[in-house]
Amino acid sequence: MKNFQFKNPTKIIFGKDQISKLADEVPENAKVLMLYGGGSIKKNGIYDQVVAALDGIDYEEFGGITANPEYETLLEALAIVKAKNIDFLLAVGGGSVIDGAKFISSAALYEGDEPWDILSKRIRTSKGIPLGTVLTLPATGTEMNSGAVITRAETQEKLSMGGEGLFPVFSILDPSVVASVPQRQIANGLADAFTHVLEQYMTYPVGALLQDRFSESILQTLIEVAPVILDNPADYEAAASFMWSCTMALNGLIQKGVPTDWAIHMMGHELTALYGIDHARTLAILTASHYTHNLEAKKEKLAQYATRVWGITEGTTEEKAKAGIEKTTEFFQSLGIKTKLSDYTSESEGTAAKVADRLAARGMTKLGEKGIVSPADVEQIVEMSY
Amino acid sequence: MKNFQFKNPTKIIFGKDQISKLADEVPENAKVLMLYGGGSIKKNGIYDQVVAALDGIDYEEFGGITANPEYETLLEALAIVKAKNIDFLLAVGGGSVIDGAKFISSAALYEGDEPWDILSKRIRTSKGIPLGTVLTLPATGTEMNSGAVITRAETQEKLSMGGEGLFPVFSILDPSVVASVPQRQIANGLADAFTHVLEQYMTYPVGALLQDRFSESILQTLIEVAPVILDNPADYEAAASFMWSCTMALNGLIQKGVPTDWAIHMMGHELTALYGIDHARTLAILTASHYTHNLEAKKEKLAQYATRVWGITEGTTEEKAKAGIEKTTEFFQSLGIKTKLSDYTSESEGTAAKVADRLAARGMTKLGEKGIVSPADVEQIVEMSY
Repeated sequence: MKNFQFKNPTKIIFGKDQISKLADEVPENAKVLMLYGGGSIKKNGIYDQVVAALDGIDYEEFGGITANPEYETLLEALAIVKAKNIDFLLAVGGGSVIDGAKFISSAALYEGDEPWDILSKRIRTSKGIPLGTVLTLPATGTEMNSGAVITRAETQEKLSMGGEGLFPVFSILDPSVVASVPQRQIANGLADAFTHVLEQYMTYPVGALLQDRFSESILQTLIEVAPVILDNPADYEAAASFMWSCTMALNGLIQKGVPTDWAIHMMGHELTALYGIDHARTLAILTASHYTHNLEAKKEKLAQYATRVWGITEGTTEEKAKAGIEKTTEFFQSLGIKTKLSDYTSESEGTAAKVADRLAARGMTKLGEKGIVSPADVEQIVEMSY
Repeated sequence: MKNFQFKNPTKIIFGKDQISKLADEVPENAKVLMLYGGGSIKKNGIYDQVVAALDGIDYEEFGGITANPEYETLLEALAIVKAKNIDFLLAVGGGSVIDGAKFISSAALYEGDEPWDILSKRIRTSKGIPLGTVLTLPATGTEMNSGAVITRAETQEKLSMGGEGLFPVFSILDPSVVASVPQRQIANGLADAFTHVLEQYMTYPVGALLQDRFSESILQTLIEVAPVILDNPADYEAAASFMWSCTMALNGLIQKGVPTDWAIHMMGHELTALYGIDHARTLAILTASHYTHNLEAKKEKLAQYATRVWGITEGTTEEKAKAGIEKTTEFFQSLGIKTKLSDYTSESEGTAAKVADRLAARGMTKLGEKGIVSPADVEQIVEMSY
């Protein structure tokens, strides 16, 4: 096991009818900016619940944060924070709204001229203005971690940021919200969380027995709840296990003491930036190609996964590893997610090279847990994904 | 799944050669009291490592905190805290030293006349003086939770306390320390952590799919590392998985959203208070009897445990449940732990009634996850444990 440090101070408030507890969690006398997305919370009743809970609290609103939260939009919210002396952010939404709020939290205290530098120059955020969340879509885990991913349309860039100052102070997770999430986004959430676990688990063995089993536990739970929740998003019990699994998939716990990959995410971000493909679907497109291309480096963990998660006990290590990859593709397809790049874009010439070049331009020439995924490998992996 | 709240702010610093990081974690200008136990840390080199790390920091020492930390001893340390204006506690030891430090942390800010009231009147600690730990013995999980158990010899009482003010600010976990832990204490640590998981898992199903799998993961890991670490405590990899499993067994995570039992601990504390039997061994004595006596209420989870943890797939639910109980007893015995009360004390008349009476005198007449374990049940369970 590798040495590690772990600290996660976010307070989770989980369960039915918990949104009403908001008022107990927002600091007294705070001046709050409530952030949300495209307005779905106004249709499903969550907006009304939040507004009721904020009764007596001084707050402003800012709606319109889209999927792949957009830098220009976030700057508008930042202007409100500064003009109105906002000292607490309340993000009501899914990963995009919460990630957007994290950027605003950091940018509000950033002393440089150009807040984009936080992303492009990878400046860690040790302190932001405090942030609470009401999660409306289980998927990214951002509700209990200190990372965010922000997009800039102008330059077709999608970059990540982080730092201990970005942990939400609290996050309210009411699984009832899943009932009103569209099928497509539930499928995306399942695939996103599943891949988050894989990125931290599908590397090479380091004797981290408990971390491996925790990762397998999350994968098994997602596999178990996926058909139930897709069939009936109003199934509260399945929604609760789905929601908690998404949080645990990326709150730092399973990555401690182990090597991590994240190459799929790095390549996937480029596909989203270039073609606007849903984040989770870019992961589903790239996973099998990445693992097949890197079979030699990953086969022991792939075989362990095939056996423990999918019950495959026959065959050599390599055969089990390949069977594990196939099962993964079948799982994504069972969610209704197409797993080939050609299902999403008719452009075929040059995409693979473009992805490799864009990553290389940002210095990402040695991806993966061993740093052996070169631009040439990226090109081959994307090519295999057609 | 039940509604829950989860927050655990302790910073874990895990791995080889991490004790030297102490100085970065103790607040600047702190006046520290270093607490330790019977002096084993002076033999195994940990004392020297801590003292080296504290170079330049203003600190006092207090040694002699024994197993089942004793109230009278802790009051002596408390007097030093007050006389020397100590504002940071550093506990270097196992569960007893850390629990003792938590009591001192709470008592130092307690405004009543008699600090024992914190235990006897179950006063929650919302704020204590800050506490860091260097763990020398994996077992209780106290290094990452907000609870403690304190003993008072005078009245033969062993009581628990807790509150969010008692989370250590940081805990340093170096698995290398396991190499110098005596066999008996390693066996105790394995049994203690194993039972901690059982107390939070062996109840009835509530659809908490991930929590169940996390619990099973810890049990499986302990089962896997037990023979390795007992054979060679210097096996760093096994020690690391053992240590992290003990922490995860009782840091709050697996108990969230599920019913918990804790009857075995409540009864076990009485056996320790009455006969001085090692805490972990009281748990091994009582587990099979408790589960057999409450088979009807627990058989679904017992069968799930038998199947998932021990691979038992044949038989009815009840047969699997009973096989799971047998496997548990065999596991304790494989650690070299005797599992009958008569192995530890020749007193036989009246013990069972004494345990039941003592618990009843403190209002504990409805133990277990359903509150159905009455004093008469306690008496039968202890009787069955001979």
